[in-house]
Amino acid sequence: MAVNYDEVFGQAIKDLKDEQRYRVFTELGRHAGNFPRATKFTDDGCSEITIWCSNDYLGMGQHPKVLDAMQDALVRYGAGAGGTRNISGNTHMICELERELADLHGKEAALVFTSGFVSNDATLSTLGKLLPNAVILSDQLNHASMIDGVRHSGCEKMIFRHNDVADLEAKLKTIDPSRPKVIAFESVYSMDGDIAPIREFCDLADKYNAMTYLDEVHAVGLYGARGGGIAEREGLMDRLTIMEGTLGKAFGVVGGFITSSKNIVDAIRSYASGFIFTTSLPPVITAGAVASVRHLKDSQAERDAHQERAATLKRLLAEAGLPVLQTPTHIVPVMVYDAALCKQASDMLLEEYGIYIQPINYPTVPRGEERLRITPSPLHTDDMMAELVVALKDVWNRLGLKQAA
Amino acid sequence: MAVNYDEVFGQAIKDLKDEQRYRVFTELGRHAGNFPRATKFTDDGCSEITIWCSNDYLGMGQHPKVLDAMQDALVRYGAGAGGTRNISGNTHMICELERELADLHGKEAALVFTSGFVSNDATLSTLGKLLPNAVILSDQLNHASMIDGVRHSGCEKMIFRHNDVADLEAKLKTIDPSRPKVIAFESVYSMDGDIAPIREFCDLADKYNAMTYLDEVHAVGLYGARGGGIAEREGLMDRLTIMEGTLGKAFGVVGGFITSSKNIVDAIRSYASGFIFTTSLPPVITAGAVASVRHLKDSQAERDAHQERAATLKRLLAEAGLPVLQTPTHIVPVMVYDAALCKQASDMLLEEYGIYIQPINYPTVPRGEERLRITPSPLHTDDMMAELVVALKDVWNRLGLKQAA
Ligand SMILES: Cc1ncc(COP(=O)(O)O)c(C=O)c1O
Ligand SMILES: Cc1ncc(COP(=O)(O)O)c(C=O)c1O
Repeated sequence: MAVNYDEVFGQAIKDLKDEQRYRVFTELGRHAGNFPRATKFTDDGCSEITIWCSNDYLGMGQHPKVLDAMQDALVRYGAGAGGTRNISGNTHMICELERELADLHGKEAALVFTSGFVSNDATLSTLGKLLPNAVILSDQLNHASMIDGVRHSGCEKMIFRHNDVADLEAKLKTIDPSRPKVIAFESVYSMDGDIAPIREFCDLADKYNAMTYLDEVHAVGLYGARGGGIAEREGLMDRLTIMEGTLGKAFGVVGGFITSSKNIVDAIRSYASGFIFTTSLPPVITAGAVASVRHLKDSQAERDAHQERAATLKRLLAEAGLPVLQTPTHIVPVMVYDAALCKQASDMLLEEYGIYIQPINYPTVPRGEERLRITPSPLHTDDMMAELVVALKDVWNRLGLKQAA
Repeated sequence: MAVNYDEVFGQAIKDLKDEQRYRVFTELGRHAGNFPRATKFTDDGCSEITIWCSNDYLGMGQHPKVLDAMQDALVRYGAGAGGTRNISGNTHMICELERELADLHGKEAALVFTSGFVSNDATLSTLGKLLPNAVILSDQLNHASMIDGVRHSGCEKMIFRHNDVADLEAKLKTIDPSRPKVIAFESVYSMDGDIAPIREFCDLADKYNAMTYLDEVHAVGLYGARGGGIAEREGLMDRLTIMEGTLGKAFGVVGGFITSSKNIVDAIRSYASGFIFTTSLPPVITAGAVASVRHLKDSQAERDAHQERAATLKRLLAEAGLPVLQTPTHIVPVMVYDAALCKQASDMLLEEYGIYIQPINYPTVPRGEERLRITPSPLHTDDMMAELVVALKDVWNRLGLKQAA
């Protein structure tokens, strides 16, 4: 009769192994000053590899301005913040960062969280609690953190078809006009590299008196004249009620944030459990983020090089007959369509060619859509690309993987 | 008919102000090498203050070993991790940290999260999902992050009276023996500074075949011969199924963790959304945490000084007739019993005496139990304590606050 706990957990792990989706992490040390090169650690020793799947999209994680600012903050302020935002952890550097981020999106205010995940979860769940009887309309392919936030809000949820304006409108039409409504979506979807119809969604929000919540996690720093994201590039920032982003991808550090009106930011600040009851980000982190955000407001060079590298790689892969998706963004997915083969291809690339591209399997993508997701940065050279294409062609041939249609 | 969103959020803020529980954050810059002194920033300029409410309990946030390790990691590895644990963010330093933490608790494995909050929320919610038909028994005063985790698990929840062995047993008795059960509690409760009957709870867990989940957030680094926490001090670590802690308080940096069996850690690693889908902690952070954990495993000096300072301050406050709680831990609450007066006392201390102690009001403590929560560290000198007692007595007299009974 007694529960055998260890057996339950053992079985949960076995299920993943049976389904070929048990994850083995690759232990890595990057080399500041020498990205995208890194050391791979195993029980048998170390080897040197090239990382092709980092979300430090621009290499800002090794930018001298960022490292100098972090060094300086470390010496000046010490290691941690020492408390929650309310209890002695409201550091000068985190306030500075919030001013910088509000300015980035042309909004009245910003709020920093420990991660992009927490910013989505805490904000969406709190929004739902503050808006009595609200409905959240959520894109079908929204990130896990948004799904969690919507679920934790306790609100009624409607899932609309991915990037589908007509379906969103059909859903909006069915909702009583007096009920609060939040449309939650992303600008760049990170696995397919496609872009949401932000303007059309904002038009619908106006028409049906809904709030808009836009996750720009894979776009901040990367798009727009000052790195505000896709909404900046399209001139739409003022039409979004809340914008959300991360400090851990293009900005190269860690942490998350929202930007919005003074009242909304103040309400989230005051009611969101995941914001209130947690130690705030260390000054060393927020100082690095301030330096990174500032640099990318002024400098277009990284964004231009990034787009050029992504376009070049997509062209080279297509010319080689590899099944690359021609995305409108910096994300370069090469399709495998099978979980076991995807893992095998990735293992071969890592072991035999020193090329690291993590396989992307279910549940991150639907079953049957397994892929290698490549993220070229300004630091990936022509030579590295040539090597990559040779290696991929070789692996594709040896494993008999599908070529481009 | 249309919803006026701004009005809803404006009203939510007004409610807090009306209830005297709107939070104003104090903007601070600590001085590495000179804790607990700090600069307070306001629109009118800066002033120097002493922090008396930090959770950097031992001042490890300025320890030279910690800062050196962080400096070194910054130069070597750069700013961020560059990805999630699964996708290029599994850094050498985070693996090292997990080995260090498993050893700290004498467990098979450890798992690092972005914060203690996330470790509680992600672990408890995932446990509940993996254990079909489970019941979570949760101490009435558990932290917001555990409450969120329990709620997000979707499990049946039973709240037992705070630290009450008889009430816990009464609840366990009512549950069908074939159902999985998790007892979730803290070792040191941070607002009252009291300690859970860990041994008795473990006895009940054995008797009723339940798992135990212990939050040692306010005890890791501080209690036990190697800083494992209260469970280490009591020789009980092997009786707890899962132990949880933070890297942001006594260890002085930021982040959270669990330690447990290989299977349980692997299951949480593999299923917890809040662990999987988020950028991992930067090497600069995990390197600092490794140095801090290692140092506090070997050094008893900080723990001894910490306990001595807390005992001395409690004695001085009692001698001065101030209503201090005589806790069995390092936490020194001085009771005010009123939200508005508590805030006023805190404001006077900060403005007139340069002494910073954040007021603790509802919902962090129940209404009517408002207090100043003081956390003396090894770095608070006799002179600072003398100043503090004079200032408190003065404020108590001027505001007519309750004296000790
Ligand atoms: C769309 C999206 N939103 C949010 C997040 C979470 O951001 P962070 O890594 O800062 O937690 C991610 C990825 O991690 C993401 O892909
Ligand atoms: C009991 C308890 N658990 C968990 C946490 C969260 O830890 P962290 O600050 O690392 O998020 C806190 C405080 O912040 C706490 O008091």
